[in-house]
This record gives sequence, C-alpha cells and structure tokens, in this order.
Amino acid sequence: MSILVVGSVAFDTVETPFGHAERVLGGSASFFSVAASYFSPVNLVGVVGDDFGEEHLGAFRGRAIDLRGLERIEGKTFHWQGRYSLDLNSRDTIRTDLNVFELFQPKIPAAYRGSEVVFLGNIDPVLQRQVLAQVERPRVVACDTMNFWIHGKPAEVKETLRKVQILLINDQEARELSGEWSLVKAARAIRAMGPGTLVVKKGEHGVLMFDEAGMFAAPALPLERVFDPTGAGDTFAGGFLGYLASTGETGDAALRRAVIMGSTMASFCVEAFSLDRLLELDRPSIDARYREFERLTRFESL
Amino acid sequence: MSILVVGSVAFDTVETPFGHAERVLGGSASFFSVAASYFSPVNLVGVVGDDFGEEHLGAFRGRAIDLRGLERIEGKTFHWQGRYSLDLNSRDTIRTDLNVFELFQPKIPAAYRGSEVVFLGNIDPVLQRQVLAQVERPRVVACDTMNFWIHGKPAEVKETLRKVQILLINDQEARELSGEWSLVKAARAIRAMGPGTLVVKKGEHGVLMFDEAGMFAAPALPLERVFDPTGAGDTFAGGFLGYLASTGETGDAALRRAVIMGSTMASFCVEAFSLDRLLELDRPSIDARYREFERLTRFESL
Repeated sequence: MSILVVGSVAFDTVETPFGHAERVLGGSASFFSVAASYFSPVNLVGVVGDDFGEEHLGAFRGRAIDLRGLERIEGKTFHWQGRYSLDLNSRDTIRTDLNVFELFQPKIPAAYRGSEVVFLGNIDPVLQRQVLAQVERPRVVACDTMNFWIHGKPAEVKETLRKVQILLINDQEARELSGEWSLVKAARAIRAMGPGTLVVKKGEHGVLMFDEAGMFAAPALPLERVFDPTGAGDTFAGGFLGYLASTGETGDAALRRAVIMGSTMASFCVEAFSLDRLLELDRPSIDARYREFERLTRFESL
Repeated sequence: MSILVVGSVAFDTVETPFGHAERVLGGSASFFSVAASYFSPVNLVGVVGDDFGEEHLGAFRGRAIDLRGLERIEGKTFHWQGRYSLDLNSRDTIRTDLNVFELFQPKIPAAYRGSEVVFLGNIDPVLQRQVLAQVERPRVVACDTMNFWIHGKPAEVKETLRKVQILLINDQEARELSGEWSLVKAARAIRAMGPGTLVVKKGEHGVLMFDEAGMFAAPALPLERVFDPTGAGDTFAGGFLGYLASTGETGDAALRRAVIMGSTMASFCVEAFSLDRLLELDRPSIDARYREFERLTRFESL
C-alpha cells in the first residue's frame, strides 16, 4: 500500500556533544519518507524554498519516494537550529525560521489521491484535515501532533483526532493531551477521542503502544553512542507505518511488529547527523537489527 | 537454595500525592526478604531497636524467613522519612535517623553459614565483605550499593565488587560508578570490575541486564496508579534472586526469567504503602502477573 505523508522538509543546524552540523537535510517528512521507503512507496507532500537544490533532492531520488507533491516556491526553506545537552536528553531550540513553511498550504497531486495510508505529520490540525479531505478512501490514517497545537488549538486537534486511527506522540504530549500523568489513564482518555491505537514514544526508554488488544512495550536499542537524536521520532513513524503498509494488515500482531520496525529504524537514525545513516541502509541490515530486538527482549515462560 | 540477605530493617514515614503513612515497616532487607520468600528460604541479617515489637515481626512470621539473624538491641530502629513529588519521579529525604543501624555489626548465625546465595544489601562495602567472609562457599553472590558509598569509599566498593557475580544498581549509580553516560559503556566498565552480570534498574522505565550472553531489556508494568514507589528496587532484587535461587540455574535464560520475576514483584510493591501488597500475594497471582509481562512484550519474527 502507498503512503501519503505531509510534513516539514527543512534544513537543520545541530550541535551535539560530539560535533556540529550546519544546514543539513532535516524535517519530519524527510526522516519519515526515507525510513518508510524501505518498505512501501511514499507520496511526499511538503514545501521548500529556492535554496533547496538538486544536491538536497538527491537524498530522496532513486528511492520509492514520489516528489510531485514537494512544492518549491520563492523564498527560503524552513530552518531549525538546536543544541543538545551533554546527556542528549534535552535540547534547546536556538532559532526557528519557518520561512516558506509559514504559509504552507498543502496541495495534493491527483496521482496521490488513491494513497491507502496517510500520515499527517506535525502541522496545524486544520491543515491536517484539509490534506485528509483530499485523499479518496484511505484504509489507515495516522497522525502526529505537538504541545504547540495541543495548547494553541485544542478543539482543532480533537476534531482531527476523530478522523484518525493511529496517533503517534511522545509521553509528554500524551500527558498534556489527556491531562493524566499515568500513561495507562492517558491512553484510555486519548483512545476515547478517536484513535483506536496510541503509540507513545519515550525516546531512550522505548515505546508503549495501546490498542484494542491491550498494551505493548518495546525498548529502545541500548547504544554505545547516540550521536544525534534529531529525527528519531519521525524515523520511528516512518519505519512503523512503512512496515505496516507493506503487510496490508492492521491487527495487533502486525502493529507490534511495526513498533519494533519503527524502533529499528530509529536506532539507525541516531547513529549519525541528519539522514546520513538512514540513506545507506538495505533490507538485510535492517532485518538483522530487527532480530537484535528479538534477542534483546526474549524470555521464557515459567 | 537458601538466600542470606543483609540490609536495613526500618520504619518509614512516607508522603505521596495519594496519602501519608507513619512509621510503617520498611528497609531494604524487609522488602527483599518478603519478596524472595515466595520462591526460596531466606536467612535475614539485620538489626532493630527495642521499639520494634511483635506487631512488626508479624510481617515476617509464617513465611520462609529465618529471623535468628535479626538482632534486637537497646535503642531505636532506623527511621527514614521522605516525600515524593507529584509525578512520583523524584523524592526528598526529610530525615534519616540511623539509630541502632549506625553501629550495625552484622553477626552471621552458624545456621546461616551454608547459605548458597548471598545478597549484600546497600550497607558499607567493608561490612559487605565481612558478611561474605562468614559464608562458607556461596554459589551466587549478588550485591547493591549507592552513590554515598561510590563517592565516599570508592576503593572499598571496588574491592567488594571483585567478589561479586551479580550487581543490582540503578541507572544513576551505574553512571557514577563507571564514569560513563552510555549504559552500554558503563556496563562494560562495571563488568570488568568483577560482576559478570549487571542489572540496571530504571524505575518506571524497566530494567536492563548485561551478562556474558549480551543485553536483556524488560519494561516495568504500566500501571493505572503507582501508589508508593518506596522499596520497589529492593523488592525487585528479592523477586529476582529468590526466583533464581529456586531454579538452581545461573545461565542467561534463568537470569532473564529472574529479571521478569523481579519486575513482577516490584509491580505489586508500588500498589500500596509499605509491604502491604507484598504480604497478601500467592504464587497463582504472582505467576498470572508474570504472564502479563509476556503479553506486554511479545512480538513475532519477520
């Protein structure tokens, strides 16, 4: 099944304890698309400025990523600059230049309207619904959001959630959206808003999924060195939804494998700046790392 | 196999967002012993004051816990008072009255000297070695420690670690002991100090174990409400080591099951103040919760 993704395509300037990267390719739709494209064809919807050249498009070319929905307009590409703490567990945003992203009005090419899976990246919830309205009859609709929208446009977020089957957010966002500290209680409240499946991303502490079959917990892969966490959550979403679309299934067993595949892709993402590690993968190395998660978590019955 | 445990037996005064408990039974050896006694006989070594009466001993009686090593001397029992934050993720110690625990000199009854498994709870590392020297030929030696000793007596901690097969500590302690932020690097450094098996407790984020077979990650059970986290780490150790002793095995497969059993017991501990929930369990309810961990973590191969 093909996946339509809408989100940001950006330049990131990142400082970590291990180094500095200047205006490298980033943005939620970029990480998502490259990760998902290892499993399913991706239809990308986004906007870049006239400073986004062929050398940047090269990351997407030669992959199962349709770029007809990547609009290029006059002006500068969205630029985010951040600095991570020594332990990589917190980051400060130093600047956010929305540039052409500020007035983004997603346009869905006719060729994308039959997409079976839709991922509404973290944009204005009103725009998320406008995108969704242009897709004919998607089988699975997933979305992301953030505290900026949860606080700024709560009614719009909830209106969008009514149309969504899978919500992927982090633990803080789940707590803010539900007003509950316990993630078990938060999940009950959020699932009642619409999404039957809630995936809570906890960074280095892994992922919790809540669906109609119950709870599923997956660890993050413990790594010698996390080089740059930027994009790990979007990469998780890409691996998760790309794999799920490739199975054609939506049951609990497929969702669990999809969580592990998302975690697998995220574990690669953090090993280098930007999409550098994600761009050099192949299915055998991805599948080998999936098996590492099996070894990491297996235990016998009593 | 029988387990000798040395540690604190205390009164705790605890405030959580859900309530207040005044001078209730606590201490590392108390939580450990009750949890372990569901699986293996326990030989308890500790000290209490003359304010520790039959009503408190009642928690241990009628269980597989030998109390001949629980010394009772003139003075007051160790008393700890703490207050948890609203999210239960941090706590302030309001007061620590060591009382009779301050001059604790563990004495090992002759009947305990054949114990096959030893758990050196979090006491002065010099005392830990004195206890160990009084046990004839233990098959498994496990221990705990804390930042107070890691900073205050680093050479003594390392001397003790040379004699230990299994170290159970939390993530902050693992980082302090090794000087490494990455838990993978920390584990390599700590395993080189002696303990072939390192179990890192991460509270609500579960447990990571590092042994000669590799890494094992176990989640904590997501709960509707964590009532009082006091004693969860010691209860984990009791379930872990009690179960391991009951198997007579020390290989990776048994260690993994033991981690899940420790997590199972800890998930009960936090449901009530003091040992209240631990005291009312039976093997069928324990085994049923172990199976919840199986459902929580299982996923299929690709």
